Amino acid sequence: MDGWRTAIATSDATGLWVRGYDVTALMKLSFADTIFLLHQGRLPSDNERRLLDAILIGVADHGSGAPSCAAARLVASGNRQSLSAAVAAGILAIGDEHGGAGSACMELIAEGVERSARESIPLEEAARRLTAEAKAQKRRLPGFGHRVHTLDPRTAVLFGMARDFGIGGKGIAFMTALEVTIGEQIRPLPINIDGALAAVLFDMGFPAPFGKLVFIIGRVAGLSAEVAEEYAREKAMRIRIPVTYDGPPPREIE
Amino acid sequence: MDGWRTAIATSDATGLWVRGYDVTALMKLSFADTIFLLHQGRLPSDNERRLLDAILIGVADHGSGAPSCAAARLVASGNRQSLSAAVAAGILAIGDEHGGAGSACMELIAEGVERSARESIPLEEAARRLTAEAKAQKRRLPGFGHRVHTLDPRTAVLFGMARDFGIGGKGIAFMTALEVTIGEQIRPLPINIDGALAAVLFDMGFPAPFGKLVFIIGRVAGLSAEVAEEYAREKAMRIRIPVTYDGPPPREIE
Amino acid sequence: MDGWRTAIATSDATGLWVRGYDVTALMKLSFADTIFLLHQGRLPSDNERRLLDAILIGVADHGSGAPSCAAARLVASGNRQSLSAAVAAGILAIGDEHGGAGSACMELIAEGVERSARESIPLEEAARRLTAEAKAQKRRLPGFGHRVHTLDPRTAVLFGMARDFGIGGKGIAFMTALEVTIGEQIRPLPINIDGALAAVLFDMGFPAPFGKLVFIIGRVAGLSAEVAEEYAREKAMRIRIPVTYDGPPPREIE
Amino acid sequence: MDGWRTAIATSDATGLWVRGYDVTALMKLSFADTIFLLHQGRLPSDNERRLLDAILIGVADHGSGAPSCAAARLVASGNRQSLSAAVAAGILAIGDEHGGAGSACMELIAEGVERSARESIPLEEAARRLTAEAKAQKRRLPGFGHRVHTLDPRTAVLFGMARDFGIGGKGIAFMTALEVTIGEQIRPLPINIDGALAAVLFDMGFPAPFGKLVFIIGRVAGLSAEVAEEYAREKAMRIRIPVTYDGPPPREIE
Repeated sequence: MDGWRTAIATSDATGLWVRGYDVTALMKLSFADTIFLLHQGRLPSDNERRLLDAILIGVADHGSGAPSCAAARLVASGNRQSLSAAVAAGILAIGDEHGGAGSACMELIAEGVERSARESIPLEEAARRLTAEAKAQKRRLPGFGHRVHTLDPRTAVLFGMARDFGIGGKGIAFMTALEVTIGEQIRPLPINIDGALAAVLFDMGFPAPFGKLVFIIGRVAGLSAEVAEEYAREKAMRIRIPVTYDGPPPREIE
Repeated sequence: MDGWRTAIATSDATGLWVRGYDVTALMKLSFADTIFLLHQGRLPSDNERRLLDAILIGVADHGSGAPSCAAARLVASGNRQSLSAAVAAGILAIGDEHGGAGSACMELIAEGVERSARESIPLEEAARRLTAEAKAQKRRLPGFGHRVHTLDPRTAVLFGMARDFGIGGKGIAFMTALEVTIGEQIRPLPINIDGALAAVLFDMGFPAPFGKLVFIIGRVAGLSAEVAEEYAREKAMRIRIPVTYDGPPPREIE
Repeated sequence: MDGWRTAIATSDATGLWVRGYDVTALMKLSFADTIFLLHQGRLPSDNERRLLDAILIGVADHGSGAPSCAAARLVASGNRQSLSAAVAAGILAIGDEHGGAGSACMELIAEGVERSARESIPLEEAARRLTAEAKAQKRRLPGFGHRVHTLDPRTAVLFGMARDFGIGGKGIAFMTALEVTIGEQIRPLPINIDGALAAVLFDMGFPAPFGKLVFIIGRVAGLSAEVAEEYAREKAMRIRIPVTYDGPPPREIE
Repeated sequence: MDGWRTAIATSDATGLWVRGYDVTALMKLSFADTIFLLHQGRLPSDNERRLLDAILIGVADHGSGAPSCAAARLVASGNRQSLSAAVAAGILAIGDEHGGAGSACMELIAEGVERSARESIPLEEAARRLTAEAKAQKRRLPGFGHRVHTLDPRTAVLFGMARDFGIGGKGIAFMTALEVTIGEQIRPLPINIDGALAAVLFDMGFPAPFGKLVFIIGRVAGLSAEVAEEYAREKAMRIRIPVTYDGPPPREIE
């Protein structure tokens, strides 16, 4: 192996430069500025930073019933030797089904915008066609509906901030169009937090995988607090989920 | 199991409340505000938030030669199916030897401050005694010296901000005293970033485990960018670290 | 949550029954018997157990240059507080690109066998068509070729054992046919260990995901030894992979 | 970095040699033989292999209420993209509190045996003193008692096999002595599976960390089956552990 190329940090492992900036200068800015810099290679505007902050906060903690938090607490319950093991287990629960809709929705937006350009049709028409196809294939469109909320108030906050900041673009426009066509062709399904952050991140120029990475970065804040609370307040090995055995009855080895 | 108690989130799994605050109100603040809130149960002052921001940025990325980043990239190289698997592997490399000095140093500060009170001696005298004992036991004191830097410029930034903000307390005082007594009794070893963040976090009222958790939260930003870069720029399975076999020579099963 | 259904263990968490058998009776058998039982719900014949043993041994350790072993050793290098963190990091490197070909190949076999039945054609003809399609789509067929070996001697051992035991079925037949048609239409690419274990596991009735799980189970033996060696023989933080920075040059924040 | 030394595998990453033996020759033996070889550098006798098999089977699966299994299933519930993520999360739950007693008990045995030699006292007297000290310090001795069983039948099986095989040594002798002195000085606490495997592994020459690693290796078999069952039988995101919020009531940001 001849070493790893990297465009993110310095070559001398001092940790004193990040993408060309002296880290002591960056330390006067905010954490969200550095997150934006690490992923886009440039510092954000004030408004871009505020939107990224809002997204990170919106996904930071949804309670310990979420698979990520529950897994982190369970690991803390069995293994008190490593805080990082518990936080890592929580992150592992983040995937296609939990925290993955933002990334999937960013791919959907890219597809819609690209189709609008390629077929020379308005975003609204691209939304209509994509909805019809999803309905025909009985495929669920990511970023819409929620198991708990009818209307997700975080969506209104994100879209309101983007509008006030003049940041909205094709991402928000396409998702808004899609919400209309889904309501017409399927049933009213409001844009959820995953759909809202996907639209805003798309309009700020992030690639689709960042839709999942931003969830991981934000959720680590919540996981770290859940794990700290588990260590501080609870006894080890406290958790035994009730199990119903429905396998073979007792038997003998022949 | 009758369920989990939690003081962090709401009982209804909506994700719309964090420690009593409506998440849509928190979204107008910054990510560091929410991290502070999750761990302390109250929102920080502007200056406290700036110090926490500076710490998170200071540990965000030290290049892909660090065990955390190298492990994350290796996992991304073998397993392209899960971004969270790669980020989690990076976190797992964070422990006593890597990213753990801040937490150990916070325990050391607590010991020194407690001893000063218990034995009714000034912090300087407590530092002198702890240094002498560590020297006699050939024990390394966490938070001092660095394999690369002689002087860590991040320490000056953090301590300068704390002084300007009027936030410094016994944590900074004790670490500064310890730097002097170490220089007198052992050899000049400047306070490194771990020692500096430990002093500042102690003075802001965080418990010792947060010294490691803050490293995890900050480093996840860097890991997420390293992993995104690995996916975007590199082929899978590119890494074969050279291995020297020094075990038994070829032999037969008897 | 009302609890979890499970067909594997007992409902009383005593750990004294596995799929209906008293664990003290199973303890007189071999580990591979229990692995087979856990995944198939029945105990294997002697010959089935020997084949499973051979597969587990064949994937147990390929040296510390493999992503799984390198990641495990890196994590052990930074985090000496948790053996399980190091082993887990090694497992995380197992995915589509590393250790995942067996599972993908089992899906390919299932497709070929199903196609032979559906289109009423011999396995040889199904192999011919699948090869032609893969060639046209420039798609790589899993289970063939190796970056190091021209001929993998483990394939001969597994297929020899299966033949001697009279266990071979459509899996081995289809993979053998595919090796011929690939040689005719593309270039000679011998069946590698992933292809061989996929064929044998298919013929023993395992589902496709077991092709990856068997790699994880076998490799954990190697990872555990690599990690034990790292702890016993090496200093912490010994690893710094050379990094070449090719990002932006030093610059100022505007 | 100049590469890694390794005594376990070959230097050429072919995976065709393990500790000097041709892997195709090892494939004719059993998985437990290879596990023994990887950790001890020599192949076991038939009886040693049978004991290792019995230990691996004894810890393979204790039902999905154990933290390791529950964490693995939770991760499978949120993240369906990576079998290895789910298995790894299960392993992370293994630590001092869950699966760690075997390793701690092997350290205890080593301490007792060493003390017997150093102080020239019989093992029984060393056991008496250690018990008295543990009682005075209100310290729990690992390897005794169980939250569910009064008498662990696996202990009788392991010790019976060791006696029949003539393998028992100071490990079993010391643990048996300790069971007596604990019964005399504290209360009857039978040797549990962790204590039994610790004694047997000690007598077979394994170092203390293997007490935890053998639990990881054995449990991976169970975890892999639990995860396979979760994928095959259950819907994603099925788990919401009931949460009771006891933090601050709703409040306003000042």
